[in-house]
Amino acid sequence: MRVLGVDPGLTRCGAGVVEGVPGRTCRLVAVEVIVTDPGADLGARLLALDSALAALVAEHAPDAVAVERVFSQHNVRTVMGTAQAGAVAMLAAARAGLPVQTYTPSEVKAAVTGSGQADKAQVTAMVTRLLRLTTPPRPADAADALALAICHVWRGGVQAKLAAALGSAGPARTGGVR
Amino acid sequence: MRVLGVDPGLTRCGAGVVEGVPGRTCRLVAVEVIVTDPGADLGARLLALDSALAALVAEHAPDAVAVERVFSQHNVRTVMGTAQAGAVAMLAAARAGLPVQTYTPSEVKAAVTGSGQADKAQVTAMVTRLLRLTTPPRPADAADALALAICHVWRGGVQAKLAAALGSAGPARTGGVR
Repeated sequence: MRVLGVDPGLTRCGAGVVEGVPGRTCRLVAVEVIVTDPGADLGARLLALDSALAALVAEHAPDAVAVERVFSQHNVRTVMGTAQAGAVAMLAAARAGLPVQTYTPSEVKAAVTGSGQADKAQVTAMVTRLLRLTTPPRPADAADALALAICHVWRGGVQAKLAAALGSAGPARTGGVR
Repeated sequence: MRVLGVDPGLTRCGAGVVEGVPGRTCRLVAVEVIVTDPGADLGARLLALDSALAALVAEHAPDAVAVERVFSQHNVRTVMGTAQAGAVAMLAAARAGLPVQTYTPSEVKAAVTGSGQADKAQVTAMVTRLLRLTTPPRPADAADALALAICHVWRGGVQAKLAAALGSAGPARTGGVR
């Protein structure tokens, strides 16, 4: 399974592609930080991000996209940019016909370090180990994007098994309406 | 000048196209509320919104797009959806090569009613009058989208004159970097 992980950000957006199967070490396919000019207008920045993500999807053909879920307890301005960049990432995935899954930072940390309260250094250290890299991915946005992709490879496998088990054993789930 | 106004929302997104010149009455070209299924996954909803907005742009060929600027003092969940829908609208505009301008709710209210504190009924009443409609646009998302478009026709004209005046009289503005 090949997964594109996206740590959304308007100024710096981490994007990492990883390949693997649940519970095994994963392989690094590609990683980059997409940078957009804070002085440019918002439409142009979103378009630059969209183009860069579409290019990554076209080049590396992931099976799924994992995007960090945004919370609003942080700085207001940052959160808006993160939500906008996240929307562009989810849209790029949907446009390519790929399933999208969002994860909270705690879920990602727990998946790669065993603790939802792990700090950035710990996440970077584990990503380096899990991908058997000789040097840690830099900057942190890159490591976070790879952690998201690893999280999805592992959890996606579990969820696929769960869905298959539910599908064969129980009644179909009805869609939620709010 | 023909403007597409977008009142962004994930569940209900108002979109209205208006044509006019600054300070004059405007003409309604089209208005609709784009609805996406709250039970569908987020990627699919963003894609549905993107397709609907791209179709509106293709059909009505606006010269510019005006999008309501999102604030985060409201409900957290709503704000995230609004930021995401707004990003899709700005991206759709940028992809079509159109300039995008954002306006705060107060700026829009002030433009069409003379007061930044006007309520929804007042905005709807003025939109109805300014577009010389026989019945008020319904629902409120539709009226808000039209108010945004009218706001941009009027303010866009003023800003274009200002920019032209500054361009011919003063030194070039340098781009802001933060």
